[in-house]
Amino acid sequence: MLVDVRNPLNIGAAARAMSNFGFPHLRLVNPYHVAFRDARSAVGAAATLAAAEVYETVTEAVADCSLVVGTTAIGHRDLQHSLVRLEPGSARIRTHLAAGPCALLFGSEKFGLSNQDMSHCHWLMHIPTRDEHTSMNLGQAVAVCLYELMRDPAALAKPRKGTPASAAEVERITDTLLSALRASEYPKLNTSKSFHAAVRRLVRRFHLEQGDAEFLLGMLRQMVWKLKKNEDAED
Amino acid sequence: MLVDVRNPLNIGAAARAMSNFGFPHLRLVNPYHVAFRDARSAVGAAATLAAAEVYETVTEAVADCSLVVGTTAIGHRDLQHSLVRLEPGSARIRTHLAAGPCALLFGSEKFGLSNQDMSHCHWLMHIPTRDEHTSMNLGQAVAVCLYELMRDPAALAKPRKGTPASAAEVERITDTLLSALRASEYPKLNTSKSFHAAVRRLVRRFHLEQGDAEFLLGMLRQMVWKLKKNEDAED
Repeated sequence: MLVDVRNPLNIGAAARAMSNFGFPHLRLVNPYHVAFRDARSAVGAAATLAAAEVYETVTEAVADCSLVVGTTAIGHRDLQHSLVRLEPGSARIRTHLAAGPCALLFGSEKFGLSNQDMSHCHWLMHIPTRDEHTSMNLGQAVAVCLYELMRDPAALAKPRKGTPASAAEVERITDTLLSALRASEYPKLNTSKSFHAAVRRLVRRFHLEQGDAEFLLGMLRQMVWKLKKNEDAED
Repeated sequence: MLVDVRNPLNIGAAARAMSNFGFPHLRLVNPYHVAFRDARSAVGAAATLAAAEVYETVTEAVADCSLVVGTTAIGHRDLQHSLVRLEPGSARIRTHLAAGPCALLFGSEKFGLSNQDMSHCHWLMHIPTRDEHTSMNLGQAVAVCLYELMRDPAALAKPRKGTPASAAEVERITDTLLSALRASEYPKLNTSKSFHAAVRRLVRRFHLEQGDAEFLLGMLRQMVWKLKKNEDAED
């Protein structure tokens, strides 16, 4: 819910973030009408803006909501409300949403929410920014709040992993690399006993997947072929 | 790091979010100069923009970074990289930051990162949006990523054992490997346009530490030297 917002770019950006994160119900309180009209052309925000509802007062706008949460950058005035950080605040909002609708209020670009607006709120929420720079761009603040609200800790992705190359494949790469080094007169090959083991360990630290192992082996074989062909030519 | 970004409002918004969340080092690759100039007037972004560095190419911009992560809205093309969700991705980045610098790349408003840009990346990260609307406003995407990155300062991890190789070192290995393949008449070198990028991605998947990078580079240089010497002998 945007209260007294003046900049069409901010209205459009807020609507776009709502669409990105799956929050369809935008409400505008006392918007500057030119701004609202201009916002309708914002990229990726058309459906959300077309469905937006306009109210004269916060009282009317929050009437059907059973939880009202205000956002603030803090620091600029004494707050009469309990102030919660975004992360625990979002958890409370998610819990509430199972029971009934919630309004999340953002104030004007210049002044934020007024004391009058805040008086409609059950509590306030803030984004954890640097103390030296707490004031965020409105569209960005909306995006960060909605991201946190829909972030599903359960959906934690497992990193994609292909099939790791087998030890035999990795050993073939090691052998071929050693052949290439031998054909290249690599100096340490004969002077250092531990050199083979060092190369073997190095190749294992690549943690190759199967496809990469084949790719690399093909390259090394080509080099060995060319090095040996040249050698034969020299003889 | 913003690559090919065209809109001054987006550059300003990215810089403001960086200031909000405490990330001081903005780098711009090939920015539209008018956009960069206009962005300097963005609210709350002056210090970050004044310190911003401009580069001609991604190669130069990431040279001193030992981890390079690209961002993508997915869905629009086949990706050659492993793709990680923002939350686990941020955890990986935080872990890395204890060991060395990391670059987080954002592409142009219209096209995102090119395949060429992506080939410099170790892996890609995406923000969990609705499947029906994955494309976010650039300034908002930057804000959400940086919020997630700094969300839990306590989660700052303990350093790993070795120092990861810098992008410049990894690129030298890529170049030398390509030289070796060229000197070996590796067949796909000239037939496939995407081959250079495939080799670049392969080398990044090794996740080399500094010592291993030097070791591998020395081997490849020896092979190149021998292959070229043989060539000269043939002439």
